[in-house]
Amino acid sequence: MDKKTYKATLEALQIELVKFQRHVIADGLRVLVLLEGRDAAGKDGVIKRIVEHMSPRDTRVVALGVPSDRERKSWYYQRYVEEFPAEGEIALFNRSWYNRAGVERVMGYATEEEQRLFMETVADFERIVVHGGVSLIKYYLDISREEQAERLGERRDDPLKQWKNSPVDAQAQDLWDEYSAARDAMLVSTHRPAAPWTIVKTDDKRTARINLIRDLLSRFEYDGRDGSLLDADPDVVFRYDQVADGKAELSK
Amino acid sequence: MDKKTYKATLEALQIELVKFQRHVIADGLRVLVLLEGRDAAGKDGVIKRIVEHMSPRDTRVVALGVPSDRERKSWYYQRYVEEFPAEGEIALFNRSWYNRAGVERVMGYATEEEQRLFMETVADFERIVVHGGVSLIKYYLDISREEQAERLGERRDDPLKQWKNSPVDAQAQDLWDEYSAARDAMLVSTHRPAAPWTIVKTDDKRTARINLIRDLLSRFEYDGRDGSLLDADPDVVFRYDQVADGKAELSK
Amino acid sequence: MDKKTYKATLEALQIELVKFQRHVIADGLRVLVLLEGRDAAGKDGVIKRIVEHMSPRDTRVVALGVPSDRERKSWYYQRYVEEFPAEGEIALFNRSWYNRAGVERVMGYATEEEQRLFMETVADFERIVVHGGVSLIKYYLDISREEQAERLGERRDDPLKQWKNSPVDAQAQDLWDEYSAARDAMLVSTHRPAAPWTIVKTDDKRTARINLIRDLLSRFEYDGRDGSLLDADPDVVFRYDQVADGKAELSK
Amino acid sequence: MDKKTYKATLEALQIELVKFQRHVIADGLRVLVLLEGRDAAGKDGVIKRIVEHMSPRDTRVVALGVPSDRERKSWYYQRYVEEFPAEGEIALFNRSWYNRAGVERVMGYATEEEQRLFMETVADFERIVVHGGVSLIKYYLDISREEQAERLGERRDDPLKQWKNSPVDAQAQDLWDEYSAARDAMLVSTHRPAAPWTIVKTDDKRTARINLIRDLLSRFEYDGRDGSLLDADPDVVFRYDQVADGKAELSK
Repeated sequence: MDKKTYKATLEALQIELVKFQRHVIADGLRVLVLLEGRDAAGKDGVIKRIVEHMSPRDTRVVALGVPSDRERKSWYYQRYVEEFPAEGEIALFNRSWYNRAGVERVMGYATEEEQRLFMETVADFERIVVHGGVSLIKYYLDISREEQAERLGERRDDPLKQWKNSPVDAQAQDLWDEYSAARDAMLVSTHRPAAPWTIVKTDDKRTARINLIRDLLSRFEYDGRDGSLLDADPDVVFRYDQVADGKAELSK
Repeated sequence: MDKKTYKATLEALQIELVKFQRHVIADGLRVLVLLEGRDAAGKDGVIKRIVEHMSPRDTRVVALGVPSDRERKSWYYQRYVEEFPAEGEIALFNRSWYNRAGVERVMGYATEEEQRLFMETVADFERIVVHGGVSLIKYYLDISREEQAERLGERRDDPLKQWKNSPVDAQAQDLWDEYSAARDAMLVSTHRPAAPWTIVKTDDKRTARINLIRDLLSRFEYDGRDGSLLDADPDVVFRYDQVADGKAELSK
Repeated sequence: MDKKTYKATLEALQIELVKFQRHVIADGLRVLVLLEGRDAAGKDGVIKRIVEHMSPRDTRVVALGVPSDRERKSWYYQRYVEEFPAEGEIALFNRSWYNRAGVERVMGYATEEEQRLFMETVADFERIVVHGGVSLIKYYLDISREEQAERLGERRDDPLKQWKNSPVDAQAQDLWDEYSAARDAMLVSTHRPAAPWTIVKTDDKRTARINLIRDLLSRFEYDGRDGSLLDADPDVVFRYDQVADGKAELSK
Repeated sequence: MDKKTYKATLEALQIELVKFQRHVIADGLRVLVLLEGRDAAGKDGVIKRIVEHMSPRDTRVVALGVPSDRERKSWYYQRYVEEFPAEGEIALFNRSWYNRAGVERVMGYATEEEQRLFMETVADFERIVVHGGVSLIKYYLDISREEQAERLGERRDDPLKQWKNSPVDAQAQDLWDEYSAARDAMLVSTHRPAAPWTIVKTDDKRTARINLIRDLLSRFEYDGRDGSLLDADPDVVFRYDQVADGKAELSK
């Protein structure tokens, strides 16, 4: 997708997002969009485009840092629950409780017992959240090893992306296979009817952003909706079932 | 139980509570004691005796008021989750999320849909809380119709208990049967292995307090524990199974 | 004061407190009662009697612990401001921002620069708080060296008061003179028209509690007020001016 | 300033902002940048450019909405204090406690008594905040009547700026003179040595953004600082003294 088409398409979708938000506010929806994926998979970038023209008072980007002492001593889900959207709000979680199944597992920050407990409870947790009226949408952003290498390299050299560099990133390539194994275990265990996973291929940033937004909007009805803009490319965005059924593959 | 015996027994149990708290802190337990029951069933009174000599910094009494506007728009369990005990803490919930199955049902504050959803999700909610390492102990304080009438009458006339009077109380006797039906529905649906209900007969305040504390302490091991103090009277404190099995009765 | 008279007087005053609270709620007052004083000076005890029959939802006891990491990095007054009473609320601060002028100074927890800054800003801080509509009442509870020694000794042996013992207490007697000097510096610098200090002699617990409550109530008008109960003993409760003028003395 | 120059200059300044933030974190500074100004004066726009490449975890944009019921009953400054930066943090306040001297005055949301109290206390408040170690920087963004009219018109028609339209905006032009009078009263009373006002002329968005960032950075020393980038245009950014001395004018 060339730059000009991308810009025009993005702007059209951002206008749709504005209409969508008006609907969320009017109908008192509680929307929680959760984005997982490896370092540099494009989470920040797509979130930035989604929120760019939305009302900051009704949109929340949640990117929780290292837990505080008190948080570490609390019920695991507590600090995430505190950031849940109220009626009329859209919350975008840049990483989430799935940290326990990803970085905490690979880097050894969580004990095996903690990981096991998480895997045992997360599906129930999400089910009661969804039954409690939260629209929970889970995206896994999938990047290839080569593309990640390139992006991490650029990031290291870019004076404007300094804050993105972390010691954990530095190991993203070395621990590629461990992260792949963690991802597979996570997806297979936590893809449930009440809270399924949607995969987004992100090697091409532009098509990734455009198609994720399309997919998000296509899930809702709202006034003035232009459905012709919302057909996502099935090679870029698809349900995890496709992987489970062998019809699609994740990066290796 | 005469006053003198009561005082001596209570003091001995309060010393046990102090030892118990030392254990909670040392081992980083998270203890959540939840007390439900009709108005005037004795929730405030027993909580007061439990916390009397405990460290205020490590003990929390949680009696949430009417939800704020924002809380009303949030996930139902959220404001309760925010009050969960961290490691080393004991939280005493004076009423809880079961409001939805009790006062909110009887007084019509919750829609039928909201009540149904609550009943469908509460067991799962408690299960993941318990699996997440919270020691959840649920007491239902059972008072008879006559005793409640007497206590509410005294309360109305006592210049020191003015704040306890509320319009909801005023209807506690008139709506006695509705509250009984709500209680029965609640207990039968939410008595689960992971989070069972314990019934406490509270028509006699002294024996109620003494025996609830005994039961609470008997569930834990702690240094210097004097087990001889902890035999609760099975006619005063018993698992809800006894009722389900027809071996005990609740007030009618 | 014998026990019987004490009990009767306290109960009468607690009834007044209930009327007072009704007034606070009806008129939307914001009442902040701050209690300072050495270890074992009786802060916990008088607070307990004040709140005993007040509405827990409208009364807050604030006893902040050691600051968290984040709090330590924040504006000094911030964590206290977060606990300020809203309209209709009474907050009782068991110790306060004056920690910086007391225990933090004596124990060396605050740098000299931090202490100096505190002393320079606290009067302004309190003035804008008072101008902002908070009824700020500051009590300094004064105990003698002998009485403190006795109470700390009892506390060490009392199985019900274990949580009160701390390493800081253990030095209260050894550092008696340092605490006296800190107290004197604090009182003389922070006794201002907008937020004066009231001294309470607490060697006799009963008269201390009774007279502090009398003094507190005598500052407000409220419905059904029985003024005959509210004459505080001027030898027990008095403005700090008395000390400044050489008409009263603090413990040495 | 043409677009190309603007983009290049902005990027160079954003690189400086990244270095500045590294310094804020390393030295544990607490930086509070407060932006006031009429509707459409450019507050959102400049904030967006400042934060664009900064670490989201250490940068906070604070744009408080209508106060909740509880906030309305609390000490006026409380909800602002809760958002103060901790050490290592930069907080950008999009509007602030000065609401009381601006929109609340003009729209009649605050009583005269409340406005008077605010004006009497705000200088003291800021002084203790500054003495407490917060780097408080206050910008007033000044737009002309014609430019505001144009921007509000564009905003009404732009499908991407819908959330910015509010009933208060709609009156911004009609109440132009009232806002001018409120601004003058505010600036003259609250321009103090400890917390002076800096004026930024914003009719030209690009020069406004560039020069505000220059001015902000020029106040701090930091590693790798390129001073040659930080000379702000004195016709665009200047201390309020210039206005008081008749050497500069604000929009009329």
